[in-house]
Formats: sequence, C-alpha cells, structure tokens
Amino acid sequence: MKNYRCIVEYDGTNFSGFQVQPGKRTVQSRIEFGLNLFLKEDIKIFASGRTDAGVHALGQVFNFSTETKIPFSNIKKSLNNFIDDDITIVDIEEVNINFHSRFYSVSKTYLYKIYNSKVRSSIHRNYSFHVSERLDIDLMQRTADKLIGKKDFKSFMASRSGKVNTVREIYYIRINKTDDFIELEFKGNGFLYNMVRIIVGMLVDVSKGVIDIEEIDDIIKSKDRTRLRHTAPASGLYLKSVEYLEDSSKIPEDKMKNFLNRGNNKE
Amino acid sequence: MKNYRCIVEYDGTNFSGFQVQPGKRTVQSRIEFGLNLFLKEDIKIFASGRTDAGVHALGQVFNFSTETKIPFSNIKKSLNNFIDDDITIVDIEEVNINFHSRFYSVSKTYLYKIYNSKVRSSIHRNYSFHVSERLDIDLMQRTADKLIGKKDFKSFMASRSGKVNTVREIYYIRINKTDDFIELEFKGNGFLYNMVRIIVGMLVDVSKGVIDIEEIDDIIKSKDRTRLRHTAPASGLYLKSVEYLEDSSKIPEDKMKNFLNRGNNKE
Repeated sequence: MKNYRCIVEYDGTNFSGFQVQPGKRTVQSRIEFGLNLFLKEDIKIFASGRTDAGVHALGQVFNFSTETKIPFSNIKKSLNNFIDDDITIVDIEEVNINFHSRFYSVSKTYLYKIYNSKVRSSIHRNYSFHVSERLDIDLMQRTADKLIGKKDFKSFMASRSGKVNTVREIYYIRINKTDDFIELEFKGNGFLYNMVRIIVGMLVDVSKGVIDIEEIDDIIKSKDRTRLRHTAPASGLYLKSVEYLEDSSKIPEDKMKNFLNRGNNKE
Repeated sequence: MKNYRCIVEYDGTNFSGFQVQPGKRTVQSRIEFGLNLFLKEDIKIFASGRTDAGVHALGQVFNFSTETKIPFSNIKKSLNNFIDDDITIVDIEEVNINFHSRFYSVSKTYLYKIYNSKVRSSIHRNYSFHVSERLDIDLMQRTADKLIGKKDFKSFMASRSGKVNTVREIYYIRINKTDDFIELEFKGNGFLYNMVRIIVGMLVDVSKGVIDIEEIDDIIKSKDRTRLRHTAPASGLYLKSVEYLEDSSKIPEDKMKNFLNRGNNKE
C-alpha cells in the first residue's frame, strides 16, 4: 500500500464545486474517475478542503492510497492523460502512509483577482471579479491590515455554515495592482466558509464608501454577519497553496484536536 | 441613418468562429441578435475580417448602420446588457456613413500566447498553446526576423484557401517571455488564412530542431505549404487590434483596388 500526495490545478468554471455530489460534475468525482480508470482500483481521494462551484485552484492538495503495481515514474508521466483537461495534476510524490491532506495542513494561501476597469472583460469573466468603479488600493490595504492576527471571524462566515469555533488567524493580506488587475493574497491558518469572498466584498465596499474603515473593528466585534452584505463572486477566487509541517511523519496532537474543534474546513 | 464603429473583445472558446453559419453559435450572429433586440431593427454588422473557432479578440472592429432614435449615450451605456457575456463591446463611436471596417483597414495586429511549461495548465488551456519542451526565444526571434517585409507567403497559407494574391507585408514580429508565457506579436498589412498560426507552428518547430533556421528562405521561396506541417492551435490566437487611416472620410482608391485583389481577408 502506497500513499501519494498530489498538487492539483483546476479551472472551477464548469464544476459544481470540489466535493462529490450525486448527478453533478465535481472536481473530486472527475479525479476519482480518472484514477480508477488508470489504476483499475476503487480510489478515494482526500483533499485539504472543499472549494465551491466556480472557485479555481492553482495548488489544491489531495492524497490517495493505492495497491497498484504501476511504477511511480509511469504514474507521474501518464496520470494527466486520464483526467479531464480542466483538471491538471501539477505534481505527485510518495508520502508516508499516515499523511492526510486535511489533518496535516497548517495553513492555506488564497488569491483573489479583481478586474478593475470601466468595461467588463469577456476573456477574464470566469477568472476574476469585475468592479467598474476605480478602487483605492491604499485604503483597501489599510482596511485589510485591521484583520491581521488571531480573531473571531464570525461576522465573516456565511450564515448557513454551522461552525462552532470561528476563531482563525490571518497571517497577511497583500494587495497588488498590475494594469487593470488587483490581486489580493491571503494567508492564514484556516478560513471559514466564504470568509475570503466576504472580506473581498467588504474591502470593495470600503473603497466605494459604502462602509467606513472606522467601522471595521466594530464589525469584527459584533459577530454579526448581516453587517457585511456583499460576498465577492466565486470566479475571482483561487486556492493558491496549502502548507504542511516540514516533518509530516505523524499527526501532531494539538493539530488533530484543533481540527476536531473546527469541523469541516470549507472555503 | 447613422454609422457606428465598435471595438469588440470576445472569448472565442464557445463560438464556431466569427461569421454567421446556419445552426451554429457565432460571434456575428450573437452580436446581431443583441443589436436587434436593443435597437428593434434588422441590423447587419460588417467586421474587419473573420476569425476561426476558438480564436479570441481583444480589439476586433465592426460597424453597423441604424435608423434608431435612441441617443448615442444610451446606446453606449446599455449595449453590453443585450450581448452575451463572452462578447464585450469595449468602445463605440459614430463614424462617417461610408466607413467600412474591412475596406478601410490598413493593418492588423495579432497576439499569440504560448504556455511553455513541462506540465499543462487547466486555467490557461483555452487561452494559450501548451508547449512542454523549453523553447529558445532568441532562435525563434532570429527565425521570425526572416519573415519581415513584403513577401509572397503562399507557403504559410492553409491549403484549402483559394486566395490568388498571396503577397503580404509583415511589419514586425516581437517575441517576449514572462514567467511561463511566451507572447508573439505580429503586425502586418494583412494575413492569409491561418498564416499567424502556421508561422507560430514553424517557430516552435525551429526551436525543437525539426526545422533548421537556414531552411526558412527556401521554404518561403518554395511557395509549398507541405513544407510546414504544424499549425499552432486556435486557442493561443488573439486579434489584438485593427488599424485605420487617420482620415477615414473616403475609401482610398488604391486601398479599394488592393482589397478587391485580395478577396476575403480571413485569419
């Protein structure tokens, strides 16, 4: 029995999200279909977390175990031939049998792309969020800086999510503008359901003057989702990478406990 | 009666090319559908030329004449609401009644994007040409430079095209690399059917060692299409812009004659 860890890129446009759902085309079901076809085994994959319909990934991580006799070099070379072209296995490596993509992850990095131009773009429509009003990057960065650190982000969680522990730590939010694109990079120990998209919606609203930067601390304290009305669309969101402990030889006690407290880690 | 010139961007992925074809979804038919819906008139558009299935445009140009009473500012503001979101009217202006997007054009600029990385990319699959072998930009540029000027490009025309006058002038081919992308920009007074894609296929073959740079002059002279076997895919090609005479108040005699000699200008 071998355990393989894969880094996977996907174009979320034509998927009903990551997780298997009956009758829907999902990333997980198409990867499992391809692996089953290739390895002739009933493979189940374990990802670092789910992504919603329309959300993309540059570096999602999943692992799977297999009894296959196919040599690793052949698996590496031919895997993508068995997988739909809107999913690409960017890298694969053998890991110890205990490794689990979700339990072992220590942080995640997301990218959010805004297309900031008067007129919409057809070519970028599925890969960004179009905002026609000119945005104030400095103001957005100063607002974002108020979210850095360990905080209860209940105000930033989709209301239908039933999560109990809503404390998360954001390590950084970096905002950069290149031509008509604004890229926001988020790194944290975990993100609540829709949290990145709700933060982006808030930053855009601050830039538009709908929300004042002085309200931010109060919005966090209120733990009231209704204070933030706009969730930025899925099309602009990319799971950029998932980070792991250097030594993944066993699940650390506190990490496991932390995970059990958190329930599903969906963004 | 007014004549409007539009600059249009489109994502060619889900179109059977530009030109109207019975039973197919084409760029022209969707623009005409939107204009008819908006202006409540049977509008016919005239573009600078056709593009094939899968080919994109950043700055295709078309014009149409209309009897509408709707003020120009309203047309400009609302036009895109009537058009599918994989087509965007980037700009619109009133031009003199004689202006015709094809007859008046003096040159065209195309962009071709190569994704040069060992592993394919899902996110860029419909917007670039994936080449896994490392390409030699310097060699490609030196090869491209041999095509600059006024030449008979018969060897670079799709064989099913029936064009008689195959002389064109290429003003420049500029090749730039940024991260994993190689962008090739072509400007010329006109391009034969598939000419840009055949040139890109040749440049890649030279970089791979399939064709020697010393053969290029002979390939041009041979006027033999079978010397170049690879046409780069449509997904990497973008019509970037169409250039017009400063004073478009009348069709210049020689331009009109030149056009009639050329027949349809399809790329």
